Amino acid sequence: MVDTIKWVGDINGHVELIDQTLLPVEFRIIEIHDVAAMWQAIKTLQVRGAPAIGIAAAFGVVLGLQKINDLAEISVAKQKLTETCVYLASSRPTAVNLFWALERMQRILDDSSIRSVQQLKERLLAETRAIRDEDAAMCRAIGRNGADFIKDGSAVLTHCNAGGLATADYGTALAVMFTAHEQGKKFRVFADETRPLLQGARLTTWELMQAGIDVTLICDNMAGYLMSQGKIDLVITGADRIAANGDTANKIGTYSLAMLAQAHHIPFYIAAPSSTFDTGIATGRDIPIEERDPDEVTRPFGRPIAPDNVKVYNPAFDVTPHQYIRAIITEAGVIHHPNSDTILQVLTR
Amino acid sequence: MVDTIKWVGDINGHVELIDQTLLPVEFRIIEIHDVAAMWQAIKTLQVRGAPAIGIAAAFGVVLGLQKINDLAEISVAKQKLTETCVYLASSRPTAVNLFWALERMQRILDDSSIRSVQQLKERLLAETRAIRDEDAAMCRAIGRNGADFIKDGSAVLTHCNAGGLATADYGTALAVMFTAHEQGKKFRVFADETRPLLQGARLTTWELMQAGIDVTLICDNMAGYLMSQGKIDLVITGADRIAANGDTANKIGTYSLAMLAQAHHIPFYIAAPSSTFDTGIATGRDIPIEERDPDEVTRPFGRPIAPDNVKVYNPAFDVTPHQYIRAIITEAGVIHHPNSDTILQVLTR
Repeated sequence: MVDTIKWVGDINGHVELIDQTLLPVEFRIIEIHDVAAMWQAIKTLQVRGAPAIGIAAAFGVVLGLQKINDLAEISVAKQKLTETCVYLASSRPTAVNLFWALERMQRILDDSSIRSVQQLKERLLAETRAIRDEDAAMCRAIGRNGADFIKDGSAVLTHCNAGGLATADYGTALAVMFTAHEQGKKFRVFADETRPLLQGARLTTWELMQAGIDVTLICDNMAGYLMSQGKIDLVITGADRIAANGDTANKIGTYSLAMLAQAHHIPFYIAAPSSTFDTGIATGRDIPIEERDPDEVTRPFGRPIAPDNVKVYNPAFDVTPHQYIRAIITEAGVIHHPNSDTILQVLTR
Repeated sequence: MVDTIKWVGDINGHVELIDQTLLPVEFRIIEIHDVAAMWQAIKTLQVRGAPAIGIAAAFGVVLGLQKINDLAEISVAKQKLTETCVYLASSRPTAVNLFWALERMQRILDDSSIRSVQQLKERLLAETRAIRDEDAAMCRAIGRNGADFIKDGSAVLTHCNAGGLATADYGTALAVMFTAHEQGKKFRVFADETRPLLQGARLTTWELMQAGIDVTLICDNMAGYLMSQGKIDLVITGADRIAANGDTANKIGTYSLAMLAQAHHIPFYIAAPSSTFDTGIATGRDIPIEERDPDEVTRPFGRPIAPDNVKVYNPAFDVTPHQYIRAIITEAGVIHHPNSDTILQVLTR
């Protein structure tokens, strides 16, 4: 398994990541040597998926500090750290893992035992490794906690990509499938292509095919029809931010899937690490939703598919109210019928 | 307004049609000189939309008879007519207007006053003109009958293309919008792009922009989120076949829209001529659903967007049960809460 994103070398090293905008036509690993390039990689979705952009942002902080001389005043480095975090936080607004990772990096400033720039840099790099390793362990735990939801003969629907490419390891929604597959269960997956950027068609099918899991690609607008035909037993997606009450922001189209699943009495699950919860936000109404460039809709492959100057609405995410979510699968356990109480019970135990 | 499809010349003439696969990037009118080319034009969606493919098939019958010598036995020509109808009927399975138009052409065989091949050819060409003119009148009547559903300030959602390009004139779903616009109402339209072949992005936005109607393009998976935000007041789509009980086959994704509209208490309307009703079919379960080439999903513009050899499910249509349809707008009147009784009341009055 190739790393989606990794640090190469010592404190003066760089980042390597799979350019996810090129998959599956081209598999290319790119090098990121400075924080501006990392900001751009996050913004343009060369690296994407809530947990992965958290890791990417943490690496970006280390890159941002490289230009500070080891002999400089520690206060200079600390200010640079704060500036770098603010800058990276401006790359994408919705996935909370980005802010969570940057806050972890900033919290290192509270450690009064750090007295030199070099010490600070080393602690930051160590923290990125911790975030990365915890993410990998989290993926495995989510897989274990959710695998029981997939039975022999199940048909699972998923949306966007919540796989290894979205995390440091095994993914979130796809971790559940990978684990069920390792347990020897026979099941099939339907993958929504996920317009506009087609992460389902490009990334999810690719990951599942590589793992030897039976996957069928559909257009997003076919999911409801499949449900009406009894062809879907459960839906599992990832998440970009979960409010205190369980309302969940995820890739645009997730809300429709959840509503359609509800109408067809099909369970709808979210798989996400505890770092995706934003308990500072009461409900989904407060989650900022990123709107992206109209060209993503009108020129998906460099070629126009609509008249010039057509008006476009392109929200990257939507919010699914918690009452439509049967359970949230986390590394800490499964939160059945998520609400403010059930979420706290699982996350704080 | 350029004709979507028209006959050029006398009985030995040909057909001209707008190649709808190239719009809006290129506006090209192609000539169709024989029945095989017409079959191909229907199959590949150079001409599309239920009413328009009915007209195209009727023209195809005239083309099919051109090779029969005027001095031949009338029985030879009659057999050729039947063969041609059978052949054209094999082009696409779902839209009933195709079969309806071919049946009208075949019914001319019952006219015992036709005694020569030349007479037969002339009657066939006259019949195509009648079908075309009736279709144009039908579009106008649907527009008049449905325009009241659009109020000043309404936001209308539509799917696929049920406009002038899908008919001989004004369209069905779009006829309602064109008429409301002519009445001076200010409203806005959201157009689903309509994967896989993007008729909404390519054709509906183009037609509405040409008419000066405020249109915004969205991806199919955004519709539910718009509804949840209160941004949609009503949904209007066309139809490819309507069973006796009102169950309606239309472009894939229509079913999901109707379910989502129901969940958000938004009225969902179908606009279609009486030729779209197939009263020989009791319910939507009996409507054959065309499955099309996986490449439409995986190579939308000649470029792959998914791994080679990925499995694909590509149904071109789905069926919306009648209970989710607030009304069907026909040229004969509006069928509120469509079912076997209400449909008969309007269509036979």
